[in-house]
Amino acid sequence: LNLLLLEPEEVDAEGIAVLSDARARHLQTILRAAPNQAVRIGVLDGPIGVGRLLAIGNGVANLACTFEHTPPRPRIDLLLALPRPKVLRRLWAQIAALGVNRVILTNAARVERNYFDTHVLEPAVYRPLLIEGLQQARDTRVPLVTVHRQFRVLIEDELDSLAGDGRRLVAEPGRGESIASATMTIGSTRLLLAVGPEGGWNEFELQLMRAHRFIGVSMGPRTLRSDTACVALLALANDALKGAT
Amino acid sequence: LNLLLLEPEEVDAEGIAVLSDARARHLQTILRAAPNQAVRIGVLDGPIGVGRLLAIGNGVANLACTFEHTPPRPRIDLLLALPRPKVLRRLWAQIAALGVNRVILTNAARVERNYFDTHVLEPAVYRPLLIEGLQQARDTRVPLVTVHRQFRVLIEDELDSLAGDGRRLVAEPGRGESIASATMTIGSTRLLLAVGPEGGWNEFELQLMRAHRFIGVSMGPRTLRSDTACVALLALANDALKGAT
Repeated sequence: LNLLLLEPEEVDAEGIAVLSDARARHLQTILRAAPNQAVRIGVLDGPIGVGRLLAIGNGVANLACTFEHTPPRPRIDLLLALPRPKVLRRLWAQIAALGVNRVILTNAARVERNYFDTHVLEPAVYRPLLIEGLQQARDTRVPLVTVHRQFRVLIEDELDSLAGDGRRLVAEPGRGESIASATMTIGSTRLLLAVGPEGGWNEFELQLMRAHRFIGVSMGPRTLRSDTACVALLALANDALKGAT
Repeated sequence: LNLLLLEPEEVDAEGIAVLSDARARHLQTILRAAPNQAVRIGVLDGPIGVGRLLAIGNGVANLACTFEHTPPRPRIDLLLALPRPKVLRRLWAQIAALGVNRVILTNAARVERNYFDTHVLEPAVYRPLLIEGLQQARDTRVPLVTVHRQFRVLIEDELDSLAGDGRRLVAEPGRGESIASATMTIGSTRLLLAVGPEGGWNEFELQLMRAHRFIGVSMGPRTLRSDTACVALLALANDALKGAT
């Protein structure tokens, strides 16, 4: 546990948080934390700080919290053709750990319709997985998630308000320039990264995206599974944004 | 199935392969392949080519194989502190898909000893997962896998013969230069990438690696799970090697 995350309502006006769930048990039995010990804490979508243990025992931990800075929201949004539920389940924590502002899940010609029937799309299932990823990466910013069953409506009508006027990239194995070159002059605008379904986007989808300012980028000729591709592309995009001017 | 992989002994002297397992069923029921249809095939650690279906039915497929080029072995080796079995299981296919020549699994101070007792370290378990990743990425080169229970012996006595005289990088969150800058002048030599355990390498391990030509590299301040870190670092390393001179 690199960062103990709290819901905003768990910290009272005096900065005291009382935990009695898995987090308290983790402090007690895994970290063997003792009174007066300081623990790195964060408030979901809020600041990072330090919690000093006032008392711990019987599965209950009392923390006196002081806060420092609030992490900025990530600059990258992810447009992802809905993957198989098993793959999506594995992906939630990794997306949050890598730092994504918004996850825009969409239908596409090569997405199977029954993928939408999974409980992996329910906030009650994915929010704990997102929080797990944030705790791993020491961030507090929960990715915003929306699900879109109509690709065309998403691209034509909804994307501008979701992703703003940032740079838009669509990954295609073996086609297009590198992410670094496509973001060379990005300045301080946002970056939207589109990752297709296992079988790839079809030509209609690619043309619609190109007509809406998407630039094709490639990591090379290897075709990767959705989750591998997402992690690889997010790593490259984060790296490129650091080097961009 | 992007590439149908065959064991070398499955192709006879006339180039005929007779399949009667899950691959034949996949051709028949998922791809609905018909006689005369051409399928992209590859021989494990051998060439890529085309298989023309001579006959298919009742779970048996006969292919007439012709071969083209043999993919080169990947330039990257991965030195990985043994992750939790659950994480390692997820990682095998992704490592193969991203292209790794050699996977060197090692003990470290922060690796739990019982991680070595898993059947995920048995070739019978990991080889099919590696092949799954190769089929995804259209490669035939099976990563070589070795397991080392003594970190110091590995670094001092075994690494030179395993990884040769290539560039050696060790990933540390928040410390070190970027992979791109650390590989700027790599030329055509190999690259060895070291990824630590969940809790990180300890100081002894880092010093021993530095004494054996490892350079610290970082993807930024975020701490990632082993599998996420491996995929992210391999993507960055592949990308850097493309741009390096």
